[in-house]
Amino acid sequence: MRNLKFTVRYDGTDFSGWQTQRGFRTVQETFEGAVAAITCEPRIRANASGRTDAGVHALGQVVNFFTGTRLDCATLVKAINSKLPEDVCVLDCIPVGQSFCANRDAVKKLYRYVIDDGRIPDPFQRRLAWQPRRGVDVALMQDGAQALLGRHDFRSFESEWPNRMSSIRSIYRADVSRHEGSVRIEIEADGFLYNMMRALAGTLYQIGRGYWPVAKMREVLEDKDRREAGVTAPPQGLFLVKVTY
Amino acid sequence: MRNLKFTVRYDGTDFSGWQTQRGFRTVQETFEGAVAAITCEPRIRANASGRTDAGVHALGQVVNFFTGTRLDCATLVKAINSKLPEDVCVLDCIPVGQSFCANRDAVKKLYRYVIDDGRIPDPFQRRLAWQPRRGVDVALMQDGAQALLGRHDFRSFESEWPNRMSSIRSIYRADVSRHEGSVRIEIEADGFLYNMMRALAGTLYQIGRGYWPVAKMREVLEDKDRREAGVTAPPQGLFLVKVTY
Repeated sequence: MRNLKFTVRYDGTDFSGWQTQRGFRTVQETFEGAVAAITCEPRIRANASGRTDAGVHALGQVVNFFTGTRLDCATLVKAINSKLPEDVCVLDCIPVGQSFCANRDAVKKLYRYVIDDGRIPDPFQRRLAWQPRRGVDVALMQDGAQALLGRHDFRSFESEWPNRMSSIRSIYRADVSRHEGSVRIEIEADGFLYNMMRALAGTLYQIGRGYWPVAKMREVLEDKDRREAGVTAPPQGLFLVKVTY
Repeated sequence: MRNLKFTVRYDGTDFSGWQTQRGFRTVQETFEGAVAAITCEPRIRANASGRTDAGVHALGQVVNFFTGTRLDCATLVKAINSKLPEDVCVLDCIPVGQSFCANRDAVKKLYRYVIDDGRIPDPFQRRLAWQPRRGVDVALMQDGAQALLGRHDFRSFESEWPNRMSSIRSIYRADVSRHEGSVRIEIEADGFLYNMMRALAGTLYQIGRGYWPVAKMREVLEDKDRREAGVTAPPQGLFLVKVTY
């Protein structure tokens, strides 16, 4: 059996997230079904770097699975894509060592959160951005985001509380920039707690619209209380951009 | 009665084009319905700069209509948007003279055609680009497009043939460029024949993929025969960008 690593891209709009759930259309089930149709192995089990929630997108989700197929990687990419629906595709495939696990071995992940802050929501952004209908100040958000850099307890930005495991994570990069009329928040960390990126986006939004001062970000972080942070921003603005191993 | 001019943006994916057709969801009917709900004038009749076909998008369609409403423009924009579905919006509104007609008075129009030429079609482009799964050479397409500049009989690029009216048009600008992994063909002209932009895109694509030489564009133009040009490229890649008066 070979262990193969794939980069998978999907528009999450019409998926109930990554993980298979009975009665729902999920990326995992769709992907495993396409692979099984090619390799004729009915029990393909795909490991993703992490689960993405319903409506969340991926530019570069990473997935691995074990297979006995003798097809080479380029052929597999083509063949699997021929079986996938239009809203998900495989970008590449490489063979990896037997011990590789896309979930456990991820060293860091880059997430992007997109806000279309126009007063009139752009019809072309409606599936791919949060559209709060209020302008935000990107410079204030960028200032606020700097408080996140480094190793902290991010309990204030976690939906499950109290959490059973450590909520300490390291953020390596936190950038807020404007990009053709929408705002991009990009955060790279060694891991993300449940809904953490969306809670960070909701908090930065409060700063960007001038409702909270820049210093509030550090306070929220230190309070270790989810109620102090902003709302969990909606899923359609969130993209898993890249996973590093 | 005031004559008001609006800029309207729509994602054409789920519309059967601009013009009202019984039993189909059209932008015109959707727009007129939203206006009527605000002005309480049941017989609002919106004139567009031109009809866009089913599946074609508009970044800046221009529309005018006469109304007796006393609401000011900013209020009207907000009110109409509150009645429109997410895939269409009004960007602005200005009062114009009684004689203004969005269709007749258009001096030039800018259309964009987008081709995602990746071998693996991008899930995020599927509604907004043609995805032929073949790479194209943008420099060759740009060369070919230059033959279009100036005043010509564009009969070779018209779907209705023989046409009853003149098929002579002037192209002021013809640019092909790469933009974040997709190819943009932008053509500005004093008018477009039926399906002309899509036939031009289909022809440029043949040049870009190396199937036809650059010189073929001039030959097709001179032949005045629709059968000599490329296929009519599909509607989802086409955007009405701007109308100038």
